[in-house]
Amino acid sequence: MRQSELFTKTRKEAPSDEVAKNAKLLIRAGYIHKEMAGVYSYLPLGLLVMNKIIGVIREEMNAIGGQELHLTALQDPAVWRTSGRWSDEAVDNWFKTNVKVGGEVGLAFTHEEPLTRLMVSHIRSYKDLPRSIYQFQTKFRNETRAKSGILRGREFLMKDLYSFSRDEKEHEVFYQEAIAAYRKVFRRVGIGEQTYLTFASGGSFSKYSHEFQTVTDAGEDTIHLCTACSVAVNDEIIAAQSACPECGNKTLTERTSVEVGNIFPLGTKYSEAFGLSYLDEKGERQLVHMGSYGLGPGRLMGTIVELLADEKGLIWPESIAPFKMHLVSLAGARGGDVQKEAEKLYERFMKKGIETLFDDRDLSPGEKFADADLIGIPTRVVISEKTLAEGKLEVKDRKTGAIALCSESELLGR
Amino acid sequence: MRQSELFTKTRKEAPSDEVAKNAKLLIRAGYIHKEMAGVYSYLPLGLLVMNKIIGVIREEMNAIGGQELHLTALQDPAVWRTSGRWSDEAVDNWFKTNVKVGGEVGLAFTHEEPLTRLMVSHIRSYKDLPRSIYQFQTKFRNETRAKSGILRGREFLMKDLYSFSRDEKEHEVFYQEAIAAYRKVFRRVGIGEQTYLTFASGGSFSKYSHEFQTVTDAGEDTIHLCTACSVAVNDEIIAAQSACPECGNKTLTERTSVEVGNIFPLGTKYSEAFGLSYLDEKGERQLVHMGSYGLGPGRLMGTIVELLADEKGLIWPESIAPFKMHLVSLAGARGGDVQKEAEKLYERFMKKGIETLFDDRDLSPGEKFADADLIGIPTRVVISEKTLAEGKLEVKDRKTGAIALCSESELLGR
Repeated sequence: MRQSELFTKTRKEAPSDEVAKNAKLLIRAGYIHKEMAGVYSYLPLGLLVMNKIIGVIREEMNAIGGQELHLTALQDPAVWRTSGRWSDEAVDNWFKTNVKVGGEVGLAFTHEEPLTRLMVSHIRSYKDLPRSIYQFQTKFRNETRAKSGILRGREFLMKDLYSFSRDEKEHEVFYQEAIAAYRKVFRRVGIGEQTYLTFASGGSFSKYSHEFQTVTDAGEDTIHLCTACSVAVNDEIIAAQSACPECGNKTLTERTSVEVGNIFPLGTKYSEAFGLSYLDEKGERQLVHMGSYGLGPGRLMGTIVELLADEKGLIWPESIAPFKMHLVSLAGARGGDVQKEAEKLYERFMKKGIETLFDDRDLSPGEKFADADLIGIPTRVVISEKTLAEGKLEVKDRKTGAIALCSESELLGR
Repeated sequence: MRQSELFTKTRKEAPSDEVAKNAKLLIRAGYIHKEMAGVYSYLPLGLLVMNKIIGVIREEMNAIGGQELHLTALQDPAVWRTSGRWSDEAVDNWFKTNVKVGGEVGLAFTHEEPLTRLMVSHIRSYKDLPRSIYQFQTKFRNETRAKSGILRGREFLMKDLYSFSRDEKEHEVFYQEAIAAYRKVFRRVGIGEQTYLTFASGGSFSKYSHEFQTVTDAGEDTIHLCTACSVAVNDEIIAAQSACPECGNKTLTERTSVEVGNIFPLGTKYSEAFGLSYLDEKGERQLVHMGSYGLGPGRLMGTIVELLADEKGLIWPESIAPFKMHLVSLAGARGGDVQKEAEKLYERFMKKGIETLFDDRDLSPGEKFADADLIGIPTRVVISEKTLAEGKLEVKDRKTGAIALCSESELLGR
């Protein structure tokens, strides 16, 4: 894409009321727009990153057999009364609204209830199990605190998957597959090393649930790392048992972190409430065992910014960068050969299917370089009179800052 | 995909409170699920169709220079007060809700206001124009009537594009491109012939706006067709002038129709309210001219069902079908050679990238054929002992009902 056509502009300053690093940088670079506290729009660059993150998650959810659907934001109170979660005492972050023709509806903050009810029409026999169903859906949460940019919003996208199994044992098999799939997601988006499987309290159906916590100062959580086996426990668990649940190690290290995912055994809580059962091989009716698996693509994006960005701006891992290449022409108003060569190179990149942002704007080199650093595309390629004279391209790695002169074929060979 | 693994089941009966043909069939075939009146979830088959429709629209919007973003559902009242559309007197279908920390927010029924405000940060000079920006976004409308299935919902997906131009003339150029792009969309999804560019009232900035109306008895609108030049006028216009605006023909034919899209010149209404201006070549400040262009993928899907489905079930055009091929094995519980050949054929289709739903379930031929007709995939391919003996495949065209025996290479050659 030509940067002269991209409608967003970068800014020198973030809104003065914005405190989170992720929001400041993403707003300055033109990735997101703040509508209100905790409510952000995704501009073209932000949407590109979001869609790549969604793509990674979708591949991994499909790989473990997930089937994608799309539930609704508006929620029928009757469904939530069945599980006891309609009242504001039970759930403190509902948004509710009135329907003109009478009655109230809620805005979904999660989807266990409507999906469990839906599955009653589709699960009859043991042959219909196991199943795992997921969606990418906007959630609404009436948060009292919304100061963390896209790490915690009142409206945000969530991937939520729900598993339906015959029994505890079948559930556990899928649960472990989900853990492995989540690890793959975090690795693929570039935060695998900093992200820990973290033991959390399990509710009434299981000793533990699990969170995935990414170590960063921007976090609101505290975890306790076991360096011996690379897992962590959260604050709830540490209060009850001061040792690693995996190896018993008692020397745990306290760190600040962001919860980037969570997985939770639900047992038969919802299947009992909604009568979600199946007939087993003996013709006997059994309750379905469920699990829920959340992961917020927006929170993930914000966490990646918090972890990887530097003082000059964003730094995207190749897998989720809005473009792979930032081609910067220093032709300026002069045009001439530099402009011509830049145009030709851009055409060749396009033909080869290399996702390229082409800075064809009439701005000073300093302004262009500052924008490139702020926008954070992994590889910056500069064409100038100097590079033209040498018959090379100037290639900068945004992450390391290393600059090298190389030929087009050397560049594409990487 | 293996039908034995698809979690949805077809049903013989639609919910008794459902009156619309589109909803009845889509629910019976397992494409959608009714959460409440006017609120439908999209199940895997429905989501596949929806995503293909979105893909077609996205291609055509990109082709006219559209840049995609994603605005929010939650809306700041201040923005809507600026344009005078916050009050329930001005807009009668708001959903509004309270924020815990104080104040009210709305659920977006359209997005002129937030996008115009956003553009103030990004449009400065005539060099920044023209621009066209679009999104696929869930809209919420507090409708009093919601009996038309996915043709009119309280929550529904919408593609809304907004154009920003220097003046009336530049606006008109884009407006005509948008008309052409909309025509392409309707043609590509299979309802081009039944869909008419329809003159509607233009508001204060233009004599006309335009709707795209598809002729079907399921519609809530009435249009007046000019068979001479293949355009139509809506009820508002016919009241003011009883002739075709294109050719003056006074013999117009009244038809029932569904509005599948609308495009609207907004003039400077919103740019004036939000101070969206630019500096022209002379350094003088000018207001931006806007247009808005709506198209609901869900309504489009419902309209296609209303138009094309028959008494046996859905019929999808190839371009938006959830799968291209429905491979039906009649091996039954016997398994044997039929099962083996069906599995091999499925593998070959998968390798060739042919989107195939493989009915590998242990059901009677009658049940399988009824499901195939209901689900409506364009081509049904049957493997049975009979076809195996003849060394052929039985191929049925869902639309025409024509059945032919042909070889695999003949089938793939089509």
